[in-house]
Amino acid sequence: MSHAVDVPSIEELGRDECLRLLRDHSVGRFAVATPGAAPLVIPVNYVLDGEVVVFRSGSGSKLRSLRGMPVSFELDDIDGVRHTGWSVLVRGMAYEATRWESEHLDLEAWAPGDKDHFIRIVPDVITGRRIQHADTFPDLGGYL
Amino acid sequence: MSHAVDVPSIEELGRDECLRLLRDHSVGRFAVATPGAAPLVIPVNYVLDGEVVVFRSGSGSKLRSLRGMPVSFELDDIDGVRHTGWSVLVRGMAYEATRWESEHLDLEAWAPGDKDHFIRIVPDVITGRRIQHADTFPDLGGYL
Repeated sequence: MSHAVDVPSIEELGRDECLRLLRDHSVGRFAVATPGAAPLVIPVNYVLDGEVVVFRSGSGSKLRSLRGMPVSFELDDIDGVRHTGWSVLVRGMAYEATRWESEHLDLEAWAPGDKDHFIRIVPDVITGRRIQHADTFPDLGGYL
Repeated sequence: MSHAVDVPSIEELGRDECLRLLRDHSVGRFAVATPGAAPLVIPVNYVLDGEVVVFRSGSGSKLRSLRGMPVSFELDDIDGVRHTGWSVLVRGMAYEATRWESEHLDLEAWAPGDKDHFIRIVPDVITGRRIQHADTFPDLGGYL
C-alpha cells in the first residue's frame, strides 16, 4: 500500500448518512438567492429537528421574508492539506417556525442581537459526497 | 476580567482584512442561484489572484454556463463551542479564465475528474464580520 497511486475517489453519500452528519454538527451555511444579484451565504448555528434544519434569526432581519422560498443549507468538513473531506447540501423551503414548533429545541442564539425567530428549512433534496485519496491512508502494512 | 459579562460583539471587517483572510485560506464555498430552485453551494479549493477568487471546474460541469452570472464565495472559521469566529462573503461575477490568466496560478485540482477550466470570481462587494464573546478570553489577571 505504500506505493498506492493517488487516485482520488468521490463517494456519493446517502440521505441517512447526510442526516447523521447534520445531526453531529452545529454550524453550517444558509444560502438564499437575491433577485438579480449574487446569493446571500451566511454561517449559522443550527439544530436538526427530525429532518428539518432550524436556526435563529432576528425579527428585523431580511430573513423573515424567506417564508416559502427555496433555500439551501451547506455543511462540510474539508482538509485543505490532505485534500479529503465531505460536504452535505440541503435544498428545501424556508418557513418561520411557530413557538410550539421551536420551544423544545436547544438552540442558543450566540450572535448579538434579537434572535427571537426560528427559521426552519424543510428539506426537499439532501445530497452529499466524500472525497478520499488513496495516499492519505497510513501505510498499515499487512493490515491492508 | 474574570467577572466579564458575556456580551457578544460583532465587528465588521474591512475589505483589506477580508482579502487577507482569503489569501490565508484555501477552501471556501462557491454559491450560485438556480432558476426557481434553491442555490447550489459547493466547497472548492481556490487561490486568490489579486482580488479575484479562482477555482477549477470540469469541462462538462454545469459551472461552465456561469460566465457573467452573479455568484458568491463564502469563507469562514467558526468555533461552534466557543461561539466565536469570522466569515467573509465575496459577491461578484463569474468568468471563465483564459489560459494566460490562469497558467501562473498554483491551483491543484484535487477532486476527481477533468478540471481543466478555471472559473474566476471578480468581486463586486466583499464583506466580512467577526463575532467575539467577552468570556472567551482567558483571565490574564493584571495584563488586561
